Amino acid sequence: MKLYELAPTPSARRVSIFLAEKGIEVPRVHVDIRGGENLSPEFKAKSLNGRIPLLELDDGSYLCESVAICRYLEEIHPSETSLFGNSPLERAKVEMWQRIIELQGITAGFQAFRNLTGVYKDRETCVEAWGTESRKRVVEFLPTLENQLAQSPYVAGENFSIADISAFVFISFIKNLEIHTEGNLPHIHAWYQKIAQRPAVLSLTPKN
Amino acid sequence: MKLYELAPTPSARRVSIFLAEKGIEVPRVHVDIRGGENLSPEFKAKSLNGRIPLLELDDGSYLCESVAICRYLEEIHPSETSLFGNSPLERAKVEMWQRIIELQGITAGFQAFRNLTGVYKDRETCVEAWGTESRKRVVEFLPTLENQLAQSPYVAGENFSIADISAFVFISFIKNLEIHTEGNLPHIHAWYQKIAQRPAVLSLTPKN
Repeated sequence: MKLYELAPTPSARRVSIFLAEKGIEVPRVHVDIRGGENLSPEFKAKSLNGRIPLLELDDGSYLCESVAICRYLEEIHPSETSLFGNSPLERAKVEMWQRIIELQGITAGFQAFRNLTGVYKDRETCVEAWGTESRKRVVEFLPTLENQLAQSPYVAGENFSIADISAFVFISFIKNLEIHTEGNLPHIHAWYQKIAQRPAVLSLTPKN
Repeated sequence: MKLYELAPTPSARRVSIFLAEKGIEVPRVHVDIRGGENLSPEFKAKSLNGRIPLLELDDGSYLCESVAICRYLEEIHPSETSLFGNSPLERAKVEMWQRIIELQGITAGFQAFRNLTGVYKDRETCVEAWGTESRKRVVEFLPTLENQLAQSPYVAGENFSIADISAFVFISFIKNLEIHTEGNLPHIHAWYQKIAQRPAVLSLTPKN
């Protein structure tokens, strides 16, 4: 098994933190995203979505999408507690928060960044007005997360889960949009500091 | 338990098809989305994302996000085969396809529709150029699904899963964007006809 993910992207970082939390070692392969290596026919033949992270299995097949890779690694390396939740209701709440953070947070954040900076304008049409609107939606979404973290120690409730990893990478990423939590979003800020001090997170070089 | 979802939206339809496939009966509550009932303080106090579908549990707590609701109902009504997959690899592939369809298909389709038609312009800023770009991305995404359905009977592989429900609702929805599969995407078209003939799907009045 090997993982194509050594690239400075938030999706790669989600998998890296997950692996570090679980203590799973998988050989890594570097992919030059900004240089367009993921756009090559060789890479596209492997990755259905043309993106990293991408997991190559021992039978030569491939799995893409960060959360699908994490779910697979969680299942083949079961431990006492799962980062996807430990009861039907807890698993549903993890899924709920994963989707809220992905669809209302990360997607808006990525669209804001890509449309405002034009970082990938060699390969996609950018619409600046949508970047502005997306950034506004990120700002409008944050009180939902703040409210949750005012009531719960972790994003999906009482236990640390993959939803915390997703939210941590999201809050880290939106610094690129000059959106900061210090001062105005105290519960997100305190939770962020707590996650940043976890040994698994400390063990990784910050990439964003 | 009761489900707030009697509304003509693709997300509500995903849960309806899932429930019909599983043969699960849950009392339904109508929510007037176009009239903005979901924007009321009462509804927002229940739904974290301010959207339907929303499941009210017997203890008075709430669960939102269509796929989280389906995952919970699947777990508390286990059957011989799960619509979320039946092995670690199958579950990972279902998750992978769910995410690909959600992030590259449904999200782009919704953004195209909302920004081009202005259906919710009373509550959100619309950027027509992003609607045009999003519609283009939907068209560019379809060959990925076509290629998969040329090789597999169902979206995530050999078995019918929640990824088929998501993809079915997506293909149905993009008719609103004048995107049709007949003729140019033969494998999607044949698969769509097959899913439309499933008893569970036939049992529901078309909502979109």
